[in-house]
Amino acid sequence: MSDKYSIGVDFGTLSGRTVLVNLRTGEEAATAIKEYRHGVMDEYLPDGITKLPPDFALQHPADYLDVFEYTIPKVMNEANVSPDDVVGIAVDFTACTVLPVDGGGEPLCFKPEHASNPHAYVKLWKHHAAQDEANKLNETAERIGESFLQRYGGKISSEWMVPKAWQILDEAPGIYGECAAIIEATDWVTMQLTGVMARSSCTAGYKALWSKKDGYPPRSFYGALDPRFADFVDEKLSRDIKPIGSKAGEISAKAAKLTGLREGTAVAIGNVDAHVSLPAVGISGPGKMLMIMGTSTCHIMLGKTEVNVPGMCGVVEDGVIPGFPAYEAGQSCVGDHFEWFAENCVPDGYVAAAKAKGQSIHDYLSDKADALSPGESGLLALDWWNGNRSVLVDVDLTGMLLGCTLLTKPEEIYRALVEATAYGTRVIIEAFEKSGLPVDELFACGGIAEKNPMIMQIYADVTNREIKISGSSQAPALGSAMFGAVAAGKERGGFDTIGEAARVMARVKESVYMPVPENAAVYEKLFAEYKKLHDYFGTGGNDVMKRLKEIKKEALAN
Amino acid sequence: MSDKYSIGVDFGTLSGRTVLVNLRTGEEAATAIKEYRHGVMDEYLPDGITKLPPDFALQHPADYLDVFEYTIPKVMNEANVSPDDVVGIAVDFTACTVLPVDGGGEPLCFKPEHASNPHAYVKLWKHHAAQDEANKLNETAERIGESFLQRYGGKISSEWMVPKAWQILDEAPGIYGECAAIIEATDWVTMQLTGVMARSSCTAGYKALWSKKDGYPPRSFYGALDPRFADFVDEKLSRDIKPIGSKAGEISAKAAKLTGLREGTAVAIGNVDAHVSLPAVGISGPGKMLMIMGTSTCHIMLGKTEVNVPGMCGVVEDGVIPGFPAYEAGQSCVGDHFEWFAENCVPDGYVAAAKAKGQSIHDYLSDKADALSPGESGLLALDWWNGNRSVLVDVDLTGMLLGCTLLTKPEEIYRALVEATAYGTRVIIEAFEKSGLPVDELFACGGIAEKNPMIMQIYADVTNREIKISGSSQAPALGSAMFGAVAAGKERGGFDTIGEAARVMARVKESVYMPVPENAAVYEKLFAEYKKLHDYFGTGGNDVMKRLKEIKKEALAN
Repeated sequence: MSDKYSIGVDFGTLSGRTVLVNLRTGEEAATAIKEYRHGVMDEYLPDGITKLPPDFALQHPADYLDVFEYTIPKVMNEANVSPDDVVGIAVDFTACTVLPVDGGGEPLCFKPEHASNPHAYVKLWKHHAAQDEANKLNETAERIGESFLQRYGGKISSEWMVPKAWQILDEAPGIYGECAAIIEATDWVTMQLTGVMARSSCTAGYKALWSKKDGYPPRSFYGALDPRFADFVDEKLSRDIKPIGSKAGEISAKAAKLTGLREGTAVAIGNVDAHVSLPAVGISGPGKMLMIMGTSTCHIMLGKTEVNVPGMCGVVEDGVIPGFPAYEAGQSCVGDHFEWFAENCVPDGYVAAAKAKGQSIHDYLSDKADALSPGESGLLALDWWNGNRSVLVDVDLTGMLLGCTLLTKPEEIYRALVEATAYGTRVIIEAFEKSGLPVDELFACGGIAEKNPMIMQIYADVTNREIKISGSSQAPALGSAMFGAVAAGKERGGFDTIGEAARVMARVKESVYMPVPENAAVYEKLFAEYKKLHDYFGTGGNDVMKRLKEIKKEALAN
Repeated sequence: MSDKYSIGVDFGTLSGRTVLVNLRTGEEAATAIKEYRHGVMDEYLPDGITKLPPDFALQHPADYLDVFEYTIPKVMNEANVSPDDVVGIAVDFTACTVLPVDGGGEPLCFKPEHASNPHAYVKLWKHHAAQDEANKLNETAERIGESFLQRYGGKISSEWMVPKAWQILDEAPGIYGECAAIIEATDWVTMQLTGVMARSSCTAGYKALWSKKDGYPPRSFYGALDPRFADFVDEKLSRDIKPIGSKAGEISAKAAKLTGLREGTAVAIGNVDAHVSLPAVGISGPGKMLMIMGTSTCHIMLGKTEVNVPGMCGVVEDGVIPGFPAYEAGQSCVGDHFEWFAENCVPDGYVAAAKAKGQSIHDYLSDKADALSPGESGLLALDWWNGNRSVLVDVDLTGMLLGCTLLTKPEEIYRALVEATAYGTRVIIEAFEKSGLPVDELFACGGIAEKNPMIMQIYADVTNREIKISGSSQAPALGSAMFGAVAAGKERGGFDTIGEAARVMARVKESVYMPVPENAAVYEKLFAEYKKLHDYFGTGGNDVMKRLKEIKKEALAN
């Protein structure tokens, strides 16, 4: 009998990436990438004349269909694999990325009469224009005493479902009224494969305030936000939430034509890029934290029972692996932080030297920073250039650098910023442990984990823990392929559980980052200093950062 | 009768600068500059083989004679002024800059047998290798309870006379034993004009622990430092201190040959570059503070009576203008701060843009920073990149920047650093006022005051005071010429007092920097935030900066 295969499709911010995985060997047989034709729309709509307001970040759903159409045939063709041997498929997506659709699931932006209305398009995860709605939501929930806030560390982000949907109601009530549903993109692309709308427990739980135990917040809560919004859940969402790991349906005739897959191939419930990476590194139980390290870092961990961890992003039962509550925390500024530094603070001599060596400026700085010992720079930073997502959950905090002298060098600052993000991760780990969730092992995936040993060694030394690195450079797509194989089931050549899939398909690199005891000892002292400043500036000792933001606002208003 | 003239010679760190001033009109008739052939020696002695230890900064006294020989004939020649019409001359020097000399005043480094001994040369003000001696001196003085410490804000700098002389004893006891005197360079160059050794009250007071009322610390104090050091004052200094404004002597036959001046021309007691600038801007009484703004800033002010101001650098009766106690405070990192930023933190795009506009990077950054409103950046810095000289007197404090976001721009940081130095000046002003010394008017001279309106406007706004700028671009040399004219006296065509000289010779620019009320209001709020952080990090609230320095030392020791 020929080997069986599964397909995972990872929808990122700028492109979709598909991987075809051999279910006997676990090997990635082929990969294909398709960039989105419209990319991220943050200035104009596709009509070229409708200008977007500040903080808008939209996408065009047609681009997602292009990804299916181009990449799925390509991987099968490249690996010379017959559609008959592809037993399952699953997708993962950025989140919270949402769009309004009609009763048949067609995006409203496909309709000519709405093509020039920004609110008819996909609101990408980093669409930040619903901050007013988020603020009002948080105030209202706190005033009423809604218990769901605790599951999200006490605060809801403007990036999530309810603020985004409410913004549509506020600014485009016609679109809000006409749409039959507002849906996560991961559920929408899954629906394009099956023809059936099915909502994922992962996005419902982490982004739409749903929990397996309590369901959604009550009607009265939405009504308190806006009377027209009272029936939001029943009018635009769904109470029928499918657990991660279950089957959404099968490839429809229409989807078979689009993708070249065989009609009837199993399709899994849609997932989120960060969360789906957990099984890809072999995590299928508690005690192991995965850091998905890119522009920001997302920390995902399974627990045994659901507890409230102060300042985390969310806890969702069945959110990542069926049968476990899964916790998410995050740092809103990691790769972005280093990128800011590279763009704004690196002298021309360094840029020229990097060029002469044929290195990227990050590699050049990393080499120089790597030559420093822990503590040698005398610098300490607070990694709040983009606020603090966990555990302080405060977007109004700002970055700080301390210990500068006239001899301070750029690579020392660069290293201090890296160390600050590692301290931030350690604060998150300690918050979990303090709440009764031990973090025994660390795993990492994403661009930084794969490409920067200097950074990863610092994380190992600061957290004083071994760090294992994802063996696949496309952990999300691989994770999705695992869910596709589970949707197919053992009978069809797949697997019955994610744990079984992981045993064949998951992988980490052989080399792990081991903490160096002498470094860890120095970082123990430096982390104590970090923590003291973290608490002083972050928990009310001195709210200077917020006052400076107020003064800034006034200055800009004049 | 032909107009009379006076000459001022300002010995800086890298060159000497001479100005010839018309005593009827106050006009600067000619100027000449001579760079030091040996510059600052911080790597090798002139023999090219004797390597200098870390933190050494030496000079060669022959370079000072070159300045006399080259510049004095040049200014007389250029202005077509006869030596007969030059009635007086005075010099000012960096301080504390000291050298060991023999009984005839000849520097020991001129003797072939000592030419390869670093300690035979001039120790420049920024020679920082006597820190151990300074630390022991401070500990001992505090332990014994020596009252002189109070006149210097509680701490003696390693840059001053006693640590430097003690270092000679420690490391080159032969040189210490052989020299007949250890003398300030300002007194030494004055002696080269007159043939007579005379010690200035300005350097004795500010740098050698002398006071008009109490004299030097007692023999027992020096003995407590080192028994061999007990008679330091009587063996190497002098108790015969001449007040600023008095005459040191007259041009000797030898000096007449060197300089082209007429034998018998009046020579004033030597002065210090910062202090001599006070009369050059017309300050001859209390309530007016002069800021000499260069790589660092020196603040000089006259008082009515001598009081102790916590954290100032020194108070000396007759130290600046006869008849007044004069206070000195300082910020150890101003121009140096901005230079550090320009060298280490400015992206290549800015460097290219500045070049394309034909601007220096400072002018380019200043233009961009000038376009910002106070408070707009949301940034706040502590200006301690080189420690804090006043009022905290703590070299172990370090710099801090707070309020960074991913949108923070280089010019915003640049402006925040400028603002931080202005806040530092305001702290000094407030310390004076709190001690009963009102600061009614601000004056500024030096490179920054002359060249950077953006910075000066910020100082006006932050201090909420008018700032007048020196009318001469060489305030120190002009100030010296005033003292030269007073040494000559009215009878010889000069003046009887500095006040009289100032009425003719002193000048400030017509345009003054006026505080803008709206800006001052914003800075009032920002200064309150600065002060809170200043006190938190600077007065024991959180000694993280010192602990980081300790960790740094340990890291470098391994």
